Amino acid sequence: MRILGIDPGIAIVGFGFIDKQGSKLVPVQYGCIQTEAHTPEEERLLHVYEGMVQLIDKYKPDAVALEKLFFNRNVTTAMSVGQARGVMVLAAVQKGLPVSEYTPMQVKQAIVGYGKAEKRQVQEMTRMFLKLQAIPKPDDVADALAVAICHAHSSTLNSKINEVLRS
Amino acid sequence: MRILGIDPGIAIVGFGFIDKQGSKLVPVQYGCIQTEAHTPEEERLLHVYEGMVQLIDKYKPDAVALEKLFFNRNVTTAMSVGQARGVMVLAAVQKGLPVSEYTPMQVKQAIVGYGKAEKRQVQEMTRMFLKLQAIPKPDDVADALAVAICHAHSSTLNSKINEVLRS
Repeated sequence: MRILGIDPGIAIVGFGFIDKQGSKLVPVQYGCIQTEAHTPEEERLLHVYEGMVQLIDKYKPDAVALEKLFFNRNVTTAMSVGQARGVMVLAAVQKGLPVSEYTPMQVKQAIVGYGKAEKRQVQEMTRMFLKLQAIPKPDDVADALAVAICHAHSSTLNSKINEVLRS
Repeated sequence: MRILGIDPGIAIVGFGFIDKQGSKLVPVQYGCIQTEAHTPEEERLLHVYEGMVQLIDKYKPDAVALEKLFFNRNVTTAMSVGQARGVMVLAAVQKGLPVSEYTPMQVKQAIVGYGKAEKRQVQEMTRMFLKLQAIPKPDDVADALAVAICHAHSSTLNSKINEVLRS
């Protein structure tokens, strides 16, 4: 199963494709879609959408996992990131891909085993899971890979639960 | 010039097409795209996007005007409406349409001449501008028509300014 993990944003969208081969996780491709700060919002949205469509067409994931973002204060940022997130979810659903989302706490729990783990710990464990030489930069890329791993673990857990229920 | 006014939302998207014929404003079509509360978010986004694409294909507007929404407190709502707004802006920009946005205050100023006008006054003036027998329901539809009228007035003002600048 190939999973596309996404760390949504309007300036930088981190993405990471990983293959789940049995209990092994193999990185396929990762990076980010970037948009220019001084271009109109609608062009940035189009750029993010088209970037997503191209990535999905090229790497053909079976599932998409997004980090669920929280904003305590800045409603304008929430709105702006929400717009970008909307076009990314749209790109996935138009291709018939299931979309899952995970809170930062769920991601930390899945990767480090502790929901309040430090960012650095999550990044280091992500690097180790994927046998990468260095933590991918910028942080958005590492976060995207982390959410992909989180989904891989969750789907393993779900299939185990289903096995138990069936037995 | 045909203008599509939009009142963005995830449960109800109000829309209104008006034609600006000289100083006259003629309603073309108005209504709303509705999504079911208990369906997955990604399906609702797809429904809103496809609804927008169908409307644009059918009524062929020259410009799209959206109400700029503000949320004082509820960041989750801002995120959710942001997502819907994102797919609507995407639908417009994919068709090469210019997208403008207006704050509620700008809409009130344009319709009633007073930025702090009551909602009811805005609705009544919208009805009169478009020579409608009744205020369209739900409110989202009336709001969408109001933002379309606001854009019509602004574009008249802009072209007058351009005339003055040219002369």
